[in-house]
Amino acid sequence: MTTLQQLIDEHQSGYSLAKPFYLNQNVYEAEWQLIWKKYWLFAGTTASIPKPGDYFVYQLRNESVIIIRGDKGDVFAHHNSCRHRGSLICLEQSGHATKLMCPYHQWVYNKDGSLHKARLMPDDFNLQQHGLKPVAIELVAGLIFISLNDSPPDFEPVRKDFAPFVQPFQIDKAKVAYQKQYVLRTNWKLVAENFRECYHCGPAHPEYCSAVIGANLRESADSELLTKQQLWKSKGLATDTVNFVDDSFHFAIRYPLRPGITTYSLDGKAISKPMGDHRDHDAGVVGLVCYPNFWMDAVSDYIWTMRLTATGPHETILDLAWLVDGDAKEGVDYDVNRLVEFWKITGEQDWQLCENNFKGIETSGYEPGPYAPAEIDVAKFIDWYLGRMQAGIQETLLA
Amino acid sequence: MTTLQQLIDEHQSGYSLAKPFYLNQNVYEAEWQLIWKKYWLFAGTTASIPKPGDYFVYQLRNESVIIIRGDKGDVFAHHNSCRHRGSLICLEQSGHATKLMCPYHQWVYNKDGSLHKARLMPDDFNLQQHGLKPVAIELVAGLIFISLNDSPPDFEPVRKDFAPFVQPFQIDKAKVAYQKQYVLRTNWKLVAENFRECYHCGPAHPEYCSAVIGANLRESADSELLTKQQLWKSKGLATDTVNFVDDSFHFAIRYPLRPGITTYSLDGKAISKPMGDHRDHDAGVVGLVCYPNFWMDAVSDYIWTMRLTATGPHETILDLAWLVDGDAKEGVDYDVNRLVEFWKITGEQDWQLCENNFKGIETSGYEPGPYAPAEIDVAKFIDWYLGRMQAGIQETLLA
Amino acid sequence: MTTLQQLIDEHQSGYSLAKPFYLNQNVYEAEWQLIWKKYWLFAGTTASIPKPGDYFVYQLRNESVIIIRGDKGDVFAHHNSCRHRGSLICLEQSGHATKLMCPYHQWVYNKDGSLHKARLMPDDFNLQQHGLKPVAIELVAGLIFISLNDSPPDFEPVRKDFAPFVQPFQIDKAKVAYQKQYVLRTNWKLVAENFRECYHCGPAHPEYCSAVIGANLRESADSELLTKQQLWKSKGLATDTVNFVDDSFHFAIRYPLRPGITTYSLDGKAISKPMGDHRDHDAGVVGLVCYPNFWMDAVSDYIWTMRLTATGPHETILDLAWLVDGDAKEGVDYDVNRLVEFWKITGEQDWQLCENNFKGIETSGYEPGPYAPAEIDVAKFIDWYLGRMQAGIQETLLA
Repeated sequence: MTTLQQLIDEHQSGYSLAKPFYLNQNVYEAEWQLIWKKYWLFAGTTASIPKPGDYFVYQLRNESVIIIRGDKGDVFAHHNSCRHRGSLICLEQSGHATKLMCPYHQWVYNKDGSLHKARLMPDDFNLQQHGLKPVAIELVAGLIFISLNDSPPDFEPVRKDFAPFVQPFQIDKAKVAYQKQYVLRTNWKLVAENFRECYHCGPAHPEYCSAVIGANLRESADSELLTKQQLWKSKGLATDTVNFVDDSFHFAIRYPLRPGITTYSLDGKAISKPMGDHRDHDAGVVGLVCYPNFWMDAVSDYIWTMRLTATGPHETILDLAWLVDGDAKEGVDYDVNRLVEFWKITGEQDWQLCENNFKGIETSGYEPGPYAPAEIDVAKFIDWYLGRMQAGIQETLLA
Repeated sequence: MTTLQQLIDEHQSGYSLAKPFYLNQNVYEAEWQLIWKKYWLFAGTTASIPKPGDYFVYQLRNESVIIIRGDKGDVFAHHNSCRHRGSLICLEQSGHATKLMCPYHQWVYNKDGSLHKARLMPDDFNLQQHGLKPVAIELVAGLIFISLNDSPPDFEPVRKDFAPFVQPFQIDKAKVAYQKQYVLRTNWKLVAENFRECYHCGPAHPEYCSAVIGANLRESADSELLTKQQLWKSKGLATDTVNFVDDSFHFAIRYPLRPGITTYSLDGKAISKPMGDHRDHDAGVVGLVCYPNFWMDAVSDYIWTMRLTATGPHETILDLAWLVDGDAKEGVDYDVNRLVEFWKITGEQDWQLCENNFKGIETSGYEPGPYAPAEIDVAKFIDWYLGRMQAGIQETLLA
Repeated sequence: MTTLQQLIDEHQSGYSLAKPFYLNQNVYEAEWQLIWKKYWLFAGTTASIPKPGDYFVYQLRNESVIIIRGDKGDVFAHHNSCRHRGSLICLEQSGHATKLMCPYHQWVYNKDGSLHKARLMPDDFNLQQHGLKPVAIELVAGLIFISLNDSPPDFEPVRKDFAPFVQPFQIDKAKVAYQKQYVLRTNWKLVAENFRECYHCGPAHPEYCSAVIGANLRESADSELLTKQQLWKSKGLATDTVNFVDDSFHFAIRYPLRPGITTYSLDGKAISKPMGDHRDHDAGVVGLVCYPNFWMDAVSDYIWTMRLTATGPHETILDLAWLVDGDAKEGVDYDVNRLVEFWKITGEQDWQLCENNFKGIETSGYEPGPYAPAEIDVAKFIDWYLGRMQAGIQETLLA
């Protein structure tokens, strides 16, 4: 029986992972403990819960987390399990509640999770000790991250780095125009790998390559980037790439669209009015990543977020959302089909690639292969991943 | 790795069970051995097999048991597996057979399970040694119980206690008017817990509370009970509650409907003619329980039985049947929709509660919570359950 | 915990196997290693890939094997996994490809599996070391067998014995007229057992018994066989039965249809023109078996092949194909419904028997039962199977 430590030790740098990292249930359970239940997970945006009492539920495997807007605009995250006999409290994926009431025996909780009332309990019953269990939560300019860990990694670097890129979009006042879920039969790391390289973009993504200069790896984006960076700086937009360094788990970049292309759309023309503080369509593309589950691509007039959830070695759930300016009106300022089609097409091309990648790894013909020079960021993701697994093993041994 | 013994030892009396009791596959497998394959299981009623050769099949996980009416009105239970190469013999859930013939190579068995004929077998083949394997069976006033154990617990106390409550209904001459199956994603014990308390009834079951005095926990049923008990005794109806005591696994009670309410119906009016020996609609409600899988609620004019089957920690199958008097004619004496609606509505309210309870227990927010005073019988069920598991562990160690 | 060795040791000769052989996941995994990944597996026929570049994919559990016709009429088998990052290369079950191109990053392979081109790889990248991984392949008169083992058993005896029976059908020039897949909830050995005895044929297969003399076990086929063998020999057709001997895993036979019956059809009349070199409809039935997964029944005017794939202890996939002469035209020379109906009816009778057999074995009522004298060939299959498992255990211990 090969141990996880042996698998890590045997990894050849610059090559894809050994088969068990993609297929094995025990490796997946280790990831769940050492990465998924430890790091920060993107849950959604405050745009989806504008009013006090608005909530949504993030279901991850057996976990169910209520994210609810408090009375002062603050946001709380609670485990969705009554402290009486454990029933789910919020049964719907999203909704509105003045108080959170358990549907079983009607214990009533406040938005902040404290227990308001438990009928027919003895006089000495202690309400204070039976509040909903809290889940760690952090907000950065409307992006909501939670952690299932009691002592998650420091979020400050993420907040500091993401804020200048995200704030101009004014997510808190934005509007969720569309959402879509995909359940993929693939390992989550194959999706992560896919989103860290454009070696496949030329052949696989004609629409994307029409919009993004250099995505096809056949042309240089350098001079366009320099020109645009001057422009962006002059408008006060963040331009300094935040790279993965050491153990960091987040990344931010702004890069240019192809000259003449206004936004991510099939015809290159604008989709909606500029979002938030943006006064024109010339903000390029803001790309954010936060391992293990958050990807965002934002153009001047809309934001596309991807929340990735690994529900097994062989299953990954993708929850996608499209956000537009809070004042944009459907049918007037934007057409929802036009808004969605660029990433629907490009995304579905990727989902198929990721599923086929997984099926091929399942065969006994698979052995780790060499990453191309253009896949250097994939190799770095693999290094980050293996580093986290190694660190987790050691912490577990010390614990 | 926590052991079952540790889980039992750590249980806090008066609180719901620890998570593994509801979710863990190994705990479930232990339950299957120590409870489900040991105790008596309700299979159905003789009302469904009135004539010799009538049979039905009870499927429990991988087990398949034929229950067939013999020539003298007796009832036999056999494992549904041919002694030749093991094929199922009865392929349908119910039917009629003069002999039981295996569909594969046509070995023929008598109703009592003895092998009648095996074609083309050698002369020295011993028919006597190849009868269908018997399953333990007990009948009480038309209720059929089986046990997958060779030496099941003594059934006499159940028979003695149930008989006076059940006999007046004359189940053997009754008619199965409707059956329905539900497959729930929940643990069987959560259904059992649900059916042992009315703390949830007030908010969850308006129809039920309209029919049953005191079910809402806001009024006393005591004086009505005393009045009715005098009446029932005068008619010779059993009134003495059979409580769970020590290791016993059965329970019987008769309690009153709300004044002015004739039976379990949405409008409180009669559903059908009084069953069996009953001469009027004033028999109240007879409630029977036999752990782990039998619940029955009978009113003067119909019987509702619930057969619960745990097919995994996360799956429970409910088979419900509605019985009316054998002489009642559909469309004349009763309307099947009216007959069914009361328990269909009330039951489906419960099935949802039980499924939501399970989902909440799956989250890491769950920890055992305190039962309310009104849930004392749930706490007793938990005690019974843990006692059975403890006893089973000890017997296994001694075996 | 019972070991596989104990199960083998405890087997009683002449009886069906103990329950774990049919149900246990670990036994199945051992079979997969010791039989399925070791022996030769029927993949299909060259009739389905007439032209260079024609291919089909054989999916077995997680394995995916490309079988492709080369430029010189030769046939190659490759693991369907790119040597870059492992993606599936052929996504369709069958098709045509001048080169095999990975859909992910467009690495391009030749039909023989060698890597033709890998774009944007470094100059020192070694194409020769990154060809598709080969799968062992053998052809006999148009039947394609593969092995997932690097050193599979000697195929020469199979080729030598099968060739004279198969060659006259000219499979390489034949036409695949129909294909159908069934996914059965049963163990593969129960299908194999079913196809090695006709104890069940009389009651279960009236259509088959109408066509095949002696199948009902109530009449002798001996004199008809002798008469026909003279005739077949005079035409140069193979007639000598190839029995299972020692460790051999293949079987071939020619036997007569009932006098007056021309072919396997419901009315006994011809289905199509004689195949290949056959000049009339008087070639009887050619039956071939190659353990663990190949069965073929061929009559003068069509071939019926069965490819069996065990995907779990409880799941067996059957891929059936009907072949006719390459010059036969649908609607003129044959009607596809008439072609298919005989084996569709007979097969589906068997699939039900095999599924019911499995369900009965799942019950605790099952214990191994005695095979009838007419089931001697089933007992021999069981002996072969247990011998392979025993040999495999020993080889594993020595390895």
